[in-house]
Amino acid sequence: MSGRSLKLTLQYDGTAYAGFQRQPNGVSIQERLEDALRALTGDPEFKIGAAAGRTDAGVHAAGQVVHIVTTSTVPTANFARALNTKLPDDIACTQVEEVDAEFHARYSVVNKCYRYTVDNGPIASPLYARYAAHWAVPLDIERMRAAAALLVGYHDFAAFRSSGGAAKTSDRTIRRLEVAEEYPLGPLGPRLVRMETEADGFLYNMVRILAGTLVEVGSGRRLLADVAAALATADRKRAGKTLPPQGLCLMWVDYGHANP
Amino acid sequence: MSGRSLKLTLQYDGTAYAGFQRQPNGVSIQERLEDALRALTGDPEFKIGAAAGRTDAGVHAAGQVVHIVTTSTVPTANFARALNTKLPDDIACTQVEEVDAEFHARYSVVNKCYRYTVDNGPIASPLYARYAAHWAVPLDIERMRAAAALLVGYHDFAAFRSSGGAAKTSDRTIRRLEVAEEYPLGPLGPRLVRMETEADGFLYNMVRILAGTLVEVGSGRRLLADVAAALATADRKRAGKTLPPQGLCLMWVDYGHANP
Repeated sequence: MSGRSLKLTLQYDGTAYAGFQRQPNGVSIQERLEDALRALTGDPEFKIGAAAGRTDAGVHAAGQVVHIVTTSTVPTANFARALNTKLPDDIACTQVEEVDAEFHARYSVVNKCYRYTVDNGPIASPLYARYAAHWAVPLDIERMRAAAALLVGYHDFAAFRSSGGAAKTSDRTIRRLEVAEEYPLGPLGPRLVRMETEADGFLYNMVRILAGTLVEVGSGRRLLADVAAALATADRKRAGKTLPPQGLCLMWVDYGHANP
Repeated sequence: MSGRSLKLTLQYDGTAYAGFQRQPNGVSIQERLEDALRALTGDPEFKIGAAAGRTDAGVHAAGQVVHIVTTSTVPTANFARALNTKLPDDIACTQVEEVDAEFHARYSVVNKCYRYTVDNGPIASPLYARYAAHWAVPLDIERMRAAAALLVGYHDFAAFRSSGGAAKTSDRTIRRLEVAEEYPLGPLGPRLVRMETEADGFLYNMVRILAGTLVEVGSGRRLLADVAAALATADRKRAGKTLPPQGLCLMWVDYGHANP
């Protein structure tokens, strides 16, 4: 197929969607995006090439990336703005860049960053219900950081994935896993605990299980030795539970020097 | 009426409501709160005493305060938790304290804090659509701070109010008006500009007009001299426009040493 290869960066609130990927039951981000691209390009069959991460139902994105190939005459500099007029309010295209024909939103990924947010107040904050999972037990940030330090690096993360993923190997390199606390609404608002992680790739539900493991350690329900054992034994039961989707956000995707 | 006087602190997402105050058309926070208090106390006529701020439709609160008088046998320490089981998910009671019978949520206020948030990216972020107003023109924070400095102090804020308020005088003391920028979703997320202000009281729409004035100054549409002129002339047309409600949040209310 001839035409320009474009890299699209997307931001969305995943609350209303059945996930990124198109599916028979429920409206997906992909369906809304392809509807908008079909309206914009005039091609009723238009399909995106691929997405960097297939976020699940309720998961958000600050910097999801998809690639497309298009013969549309809309200039690249105007493409995002034109596309946004066709998208619903909870999905926005924030950037469009021309890329080499070899660029692939999924296979060209060098580094990806996700953030998981926990509302750690005694009572769930209505102002973070869409963007955080509530965890009432007060979290010990220093213990969580000690557990995070064990997880950083090249490991077999088989204990930190749900069944259903298509990955052939469960070896991954976590480059960064940081725990921070924040009071974004001041003294009366919730204490948020943010877990942000970068890796060359993530297994199915891996970030939500990493977050579940860290909060269980931070609540005293699980020991540092359990985390080491989860890595060593590859036993899913030695890791923490899978936290709910609304706390998860795909922050950015890095394609290295070869691509923007 | 005999019984305990209680001070209730509330957090809410105002998106779905016609404002705090009960009204014939549309569901208010007050209606939902009184429904919950009626269910909890068993008194079908139960009414709250007063609220610190009558937030408008779409406005949020991290620390709204109301007072009630009740003969309920629910212990004060359990009251918030019991009340939350009767409240919808977008309203939460975060604190309940016993206060003197003289305590009045509105008349006893010493200091109040509001925050106005602007999404200052070129494209509106779907992740801040509920909690910020979009303003695409890049804002000059230093110019906004210079304008804010002119507004702090004891002034006649007649130019900074909408008609419809019941206040007898428009003299108020702004104790603090700070402008800050923030990138809460990282490099690809929106630039948020936060305007936070403390005063002994606010006129109708005053915070939204202060915010509108500051962003107009920050966009080069209005001069510092215009702000000084608005204060000096009390002419509404010399101040900026009223920004939309979703960017506004009542942060906290201070009742001084005499009350918790």
